Amino acid sequence: MMDNGFHNIMIDEIVKNALMEDIGTGDVTTLSTVAADKTIAGKFIAKESGVICGMPVVERVFALMDHSIALGVLCGDGESVEAGAVIAEISGRAQPILSGERVALNFLQRLSGIATRTRRCVDTVKTTKARITDTRKTTPGLRALEKYAVKTGGGSNHRLGLSDGVLLKDNHIRAAGGIGAAVKAARKNIPHTLKIEVEVENEHMVREALDSGADIIMLDNMGIDEIASAVKLISGRALVEASGNIGDKDLLTVARTGVDIISIGALTHTVRAMDISLRFG
Amino acid sequence: MMDNGFHNIMIDEIVKNALMEDIGTGDVTTLSTVAADKTIAGKFIAKESGVICGMPVVERVFALMDHSIALGVLCGDGESVEAGAVIAEISGRAQPILSGERVALNFLQRLSGIATRTRRCVDTVKTTKARITDTRKTTPGLRALEKYAVKTGGGSNHRLGLSDGVLLKDNHIRAAGGIGAAVKAARKNIPHTLKIEVEVENEHMVREALDSGADIIMLDNMGIDEIASAVKLISGRALVEASGNIGDKDLLTVARTGVDIISIGALTHTVRAMDISLRFG
Amino acid sequence: MMDNGFHNIMIDEIVKNALMEDIGTGDVTTLSTVAADKTIAGKFIAKESGVICGMPVVERVFALMDHSIALGVLCGDGESVEAGAVIAEISGRAQPILSGERVALNFLQRLSGIATRTRRCVDTVKTTKARITDTRKTTPGLRALEKYAVKTGGGSNHRLGLSDGVLLKDNHIRAAGGIGAAVKAARKNIPHTLKIEVEVENEHMVREALDSGADIIMLDNMGIDEIASAVKLISGRALVEASGNIGDKDLLTVARTGVDIISIGALTHTVRAMDISLRFG
Amino acid sequence: MMDNGFHNIMIDEIVKNALMEDIGTGDVTTLSTVAADKTIAGKFIAKESGVICGMPVVERVFALMDHSIALGVLCGDGESVEAGAVIAEISGRAQPILSGERVALNFLQRLSGIATRTRRCVDTVKTTKARITDTRKTTPGLRALEKYAVKTGGGSNHRLGLSDGVLLKDNHIRAAGGIGAAVKAARKNIPHTLKIEVEVENEHMVREALDSGADIIMLDNMGIDEIASAVKLISGRALVEASGNIGDKDLLTVARTGVDIISIGALTHTVRAMDISLRFG
Amino acid sequence: MMDNGFHNIMIDEIVKNALMEDIGTGDVTTLSTVAADKTIAGKFIAKESGVICGMPVVERVFALMDHSIALGVLCGDGESVEAGAVIAEISGRAQPILSGERVALNFLQRLSGIATRTRRCVDTVKTTKARITDTRKTTPGLRALEKYAVKTGGGSNHRLGLSDGVLLKDNHIRAAGGIGAAVKAARKNIPHTLKIEVEVENEHMVREALDSGADIIMLDNMGIDEIASAVKLISGRALVEASGNIGDKDLLTVARTGVDIISIGALTHTVRAMDISLRFG
Amino acid sequence: MMDNGFHNIMIDEIVKNALMEDIGTGDVTTLSTVAADKTIAGKFIAKESGVICGMPVVERVFALMDHSIALGVLCGDGESVEAGAVIAEISGRAQPILSGERVALNFLQRLSGIATRTRRCVDTVKTTKARITDTRKTTPGLRALEKYAVKTGGGSNHRLGLSDGVLLKDNHIRAAGGIGAAVKAARKNIPHTLKIEVEVENEHMVREALDSGADIIMLDNMGIDEIASAVKLISGRALVEASGNIGDKDLLTVARTGVDIISIGALTHTVRAMDISLRFG
Repeated sequence: MMDNGFHNIMIDEIVKNALMEDIGTGDVTTLSTVAADKTIAGKFIAKESGVICGMPVVERVFALMDHSIALGVLCGDGESVEAGAVIAEISGRAQPILSGERVALNFLQRLSGIATRTRRCVDTVKTTKARITDTRKTTPGLRALEKYAVKTGGGSNHRLGLSDGVLLKDNHIRAAGGIGAAVKAARKNIPHTLKIEVEVENEHMVREALDSGADIIMLDNMGIDEIASAVKLISGRALVEASGNIGDKDLLTVARTGVDIISIGALTHTVRAMDISLRFG
Repeated sequence: MMDNGFHNIMIDEIVKNALMEDIGTGDVTTLSTVAADKTIAGKFIAKESGVICGMPVVERVFALMDHSIALGVLCGDGESVEAGAVIAEISGRAQPILSGERVALNFLQRLSGIATRTRRCVDTVKTTKARITDTRKTTPGLRALEKYAVKTGGGSNHRLGLSDGVLLKDNHIRAAGGIGAAVKAARKNIPHTLKIEVEVENEHMVREALDSGADIIMLDNMGIDEIASAVKLISGRALVEASGNIGDKDLLTVARTGVDIISIGALTHTVRAMDISLRFG
Repeated sequence: MMDNGFHNIMIDEIVKNALMEDIGTGDVTTLSTVAADKTIAGKFIAKESGVICGMPVVERVFALMDHSIALGVLCGDGESVEAGAVIAEISGRAQPILSGERVALNFLQRLSGIATRTRRCVDTVKTTKARITDTRKTTPGLRALEKYAVKTGGGSNHRLGLSDGVLLKDNHIRAAGGIGAAVKAARKNIPHTLKIEVEVENEHMVREALDSGADIIMLDNMGIDEIASAVKLISGRALVEASGNIGDKDLLTVARTGVDIISIGALTHTVRAMDISLRFG
Repeated sequence: MMDNGFHNIMIDEIVKNALMEDIGTGDVTTLSTVAADKTIAGKFIAKESGVICGMPVVERVFALMDHSIALGVLCGDGESVEAGAVIAEISGRAQPILSGERVALNFLQRLSGIATRTRRCVDTVKTTKARITDTRKTTPGLRALEKYAVKTGGGSNHRLGLSDGVLLKDNHIRAAGGIGAAVKAARKNIPHTLKIEVEVENEHMVREALDSGADIIMLDNMGIDEIASAVKLISGRALVEASGNIGDKDLLTVARTGVDIISIGALTHTVRAMDISLRFG
Repeated sequence: MMDNGFHNIMIDEIVKNALMEDIGTGDVTTLSTVAADKTIAGKFIAKESGVICGMPVVERVFALMDHSIALGVLCGDGESVEAGAVIAEISGRAQPILSGERVALNFLQRLSGIATRTRRCVDTVKTTKARITDTRKTTPGLRALEKYAVKTGGGSNHRLGLSDGVLLKDNHIRAAGGIGAAVKAARKNIPHTLKIEVEVENEHMVREALDSGADIIMLDNMGIDEIASAVKLISGRALVEASGNIGDKDLLTVARTGVDIISIGALTHTVRAMDISLRFG
Repeated sequence: MMDNGFHNIMIDEIVKNALMEDIGTGDVTTLSTVAADKTIAGKFIAKESGVICGMPVVERVFALMDHSIALGVLCGDGESVEAGAVIAEISGRAQPILSGERVALNFLQRLSGIATRTRRCVDTVKTTKARITDTRKTTPGLRALEKYAVKTGGGSNHRLGLSDGVLLKDNHIRAAGGIGAAVKAARKNIPHTLKIEVEVENEHMVREALDSGADIIMLDNMGIDEIASAVKLISGRALVEASGNIGDKDLLTVARTGVDIISIGALTHTVRAMDISLRFG
């Protein structure tokens, strides 16, 4: 995503908001103690191992603070680093660097935390064909960045929102009068470019979903055995997605059943920030 | 914070953005399967114990979706609940309720996660005089809400941003030519309504900070014994704040040294969403 | 789309911008000649036959001008009317009604123009299975409303933008190294909820697209005979979309070849406003 | 208008919105198939004759996508071109060029369509003194650009909105108690920098308007003979504007009556996009 | 202006910004000392005589803070009051009233200050035909409100900005090659709904302006005798506007020369806030 | 404030709004009379003595109009100038310079007016220890700029808004049940980085405030003798602020009582624009 020149427009909006939120009417500490022409140099250092994500955002933070700040990225997004690694070097006027430091780190630590966890999940299932995806359980306002972090960690994206994917759940099915009717109604009304996914809870519903011609069948909160039978039953006639509180240690077991996709809400709803600091020297 | 009528203005901005981010140009699933006049009723249920936070945000989500949706809050912000507790009841037109569900839960689960963790920290030190506070390590765009969640959990807020508090760190001190010079420069330039806080790393710096007339001394990453001696040395002449990766199990030990404030970045940078669901029935 | 309570948020943004664009700092004509407490009543009248679209937007225009204006909609979105039909009745304070009239009509006439043309195309092919869809050739800033007008006229929507659908064109195919490679690259990187469409120009490319497993094959600017052979060749293994300057009189001929979708840029890029007026008295 | 440095501010707002509307969270097709460092070169080609308008907007589209894209404009705004003419050449990174192509064309084709039609009308009446103007029947959100296109085509602008011109219509006249009273009320309340225009429907009203000292008299929907008598009656004492569904073939006849202005809503409310394409290779 | 329902849209934007600017993340004083359910009642009292302006803005301030606050306006915009007069009464929840008080007063005092000064100028020249107008020397961001205050005080508005009036100054005249050429160029390019004003500095330029057919002639910084001769010379063939640092005591003298308009920058660029307070009790 | 690179973000928002407010859809005068490639050169000249403030804003105005305009600042913010001084030189394309002139001057004259008045107050009390501060009586939307002007004039800032300072007034005190209770409630709830200020009206309240441990005591509208006794009574145990309609001639008398701070609303609520012009040629 970050490769696309366009995205500076979106990223800049988010970064400007974050800077205004933190700096308010001015960094009174820095403005009263650091001369305007003083310069400084520092390094971004990983204090634990992980997968870096967010350097393009860091670049925009400092570019918006002062165009003349020099940022040399040593570890690009997606690189794995060990504790102690120097991720980037920065130099320029001290005032804007010190005032922008916290916002830059808040983005970098959060996104790297997501990429790191995703990488671990992806590595866990790498001997299988299962694809690890995110969900819509993201932080309000940061969905595009968080989904980018999941991709950076090696995962895949599920639908980005309610308008670019169809997921028929219990309530939709009941309102439409059954799985078959719901799939038919959706097929008639949605763009022909979208697939239709149905959430099921048991074998009976799997059969109905198959009969309806659903493109993707999501097995919600099913046990391992149920998942295994469902995969067999479906047998390639639809993509199979496993979902619902699948803990890190069950991941490989679930993947080995042959499911195509495992979606994990915790990738974005329960994030441990990666420990990264900016040291001046 | 949420009591203030004004805040609907700020919350509405955040909620509108979140809804537009998720719903995009329309919830194609719901629009194609659920009739516009169909109604529905459901309950927000805690699936684990915790401290509820974010109900005023949930109210705004559904009010913005459709003014006629009825939301009855049973557990207000700050209440502790057990697994299984019914937090709120909702009823109204099915389309806007289903389309707004995920955004409402994303706010509620995150803010309740923060309040829950804060409450645990506050309870841990309740036999001491230590106050638990947050930091500026918040999610970009959500600082006001996350700081509100910390207060809801019983914690206190540190400065909200760079313009409403002074924290002299290593670089400011060096640039100004020492702690004394830095405090003097700050005192001259900042509004007289703000206190001055100095970050120190050893006893020598504590003495300098005391001599400078600093209002608050932050002990950064010091060991327990160092903290204890610093508290004795300061002896009420300044507020004492302990900071820096203080794990949950060290919390009481640190608090017992007599520090006034313990600030914890993880309250907001490493959040575990509380498990809450919306069940229709 | 308009059924969903949420959409008032998006529509209100567009309507507010339109009102500010037209009214600027005030309607000097009305403010200087019409007393603030004068009331007025009028009717929206179709001056030619067509399909009405945009009444929810009209409602928001006047609600934002003055909550107490009464608007009674007699012909809802999607209804066909003859010349002379009364579409809606309005009454209330004269100042806000006169100041909002032009903005309301600008939306209503444009959207009804789109719905009317779409309905004519849909009716033309109604004896076939072909679905009429729009494209991305919409007016900047009004895409969601214009795509809504297409649905109101009985058409279907193509992808809404670049992030919710995959359409591999010449340049993508060349950059990826052929149709097969392009489809494979896309399948690996996009959300599993999206289908993959390939644009082809001749039978050779159709075969390649089929081999690649494309979900949808778009026949770009092909002649009738080529389209007919392609449909036979594809034979249900992919959806078939015909595209490219298909004039109104060729529409049925193309549809009879058995294509699934006919996409028409002119539905939105070359709009004839429907003649509707607001008559007072 | 486009000459004024200021306008980049306004144009950039419109262009950013258009890009966000189309690209959403990312052009999944391009990002998954085209390498970030791949470059491309292409030409904007007129596929029919017309008057070019919108190149400064096209420039901003690509500048906002990626500053390093090179755009060489060969036919500036206002130039007439024949089918096959190369309007501009573009080269640079393939990703941002492909992702921005549709938005650039949507602006260029629409604005050139307006300029082309306006030029045709202006040419039709060039042997007379009549000035061709637009109206307020523009696309919501694009008025300034569309009025610029009218000027580019050789036409003139009517008032831009309700605050920079006075047009007394039936309702204002009735509310004020007659034409004389309405003109007097307006003259008293509006800035002295604005002229006053009165809309009339018959000779009797023309006389009243003349007596009232109106600066401009708009003849609304009158027949050719009525227009001719009105022009004679007014005889230079006020500007005369003819308005109301004047078809292309009646234009010269109306102009020959000696009216000063002919305002044509269809210039902007019923636009046929000019056919222009971007060809690579 | 304020009579027009539409303007709540514009006023609300300005008021929301002002509230966010002042209240930031929350009124910490009020939130920590005043219970959420406490109510309060107070009166807006004029502490000096003057002309009230801004009550509709005050209404929006409190409506946005809390819909249930009751505000009873006793002196509407445009009324003259003496010191001690009760302008309005307010009652409702104490928190939002106390948090919104300062913003409400900042608007009310400033706008009333402008209206009061304008009224004094208007009264000074009331025995003449001269109209008192404002200029473009307004506070950035508040022009529409400040121009409304001038009208409320009995003054008239000059053009609102650069797009709704033509004022040819020295540089325009020189660039165009003289007054005649400048007027001709303007007449050709501007909407026919706008008058053309020329700024002159001596009798020679007055004659040129008259010859050019200018609609309005602005006498810039001329002495009384020069103004008087110019008025005679022009003799009704154009509106005459006197401008340029005309002090309060010269006002009547200037007006008596027979000028049509006297424009005064100080009405808005040098404002003395009217002393108004909100007393509780 | 202006030293910090960040602030361009905030200033640019304000400047863009001001430009859009003034230029609207285009400067019709300049566009119709001045050729796009014509250049011009001019000087900003002080027409009276004063303290310059706002040059960084002027720089952004012209940078946003046209990057190639050259602005050479001769007198930076904070410098005192005499009448006739050349403050800055400008050269570049005539169109954007003429179109941006008024907005630039509106900022520069207003901010310099504030800085000039502040400097006069600061000079008046320079033999005492009293600090001159602003209040929250600022122009809505321009608070940060106006507070910057106060600092530029040599004054200090009071709290920026309601969230970064505590000021307990009559209503808070009554609601909390007395000064002691109010201070205690505030101390418990606010960030520990903020001081607590109490507004008092007589000696009795001063004593209560001292007992409560207030950090700052504001003497509201007290007479000179009362202020003097209060300063003695407080005797360094709290900062003392005098407030309330202190005229320029009383300033030194009040300062000599030994108060620490004198806050003056009129610094920003009653501003006389400094007379500065832009002369070409």
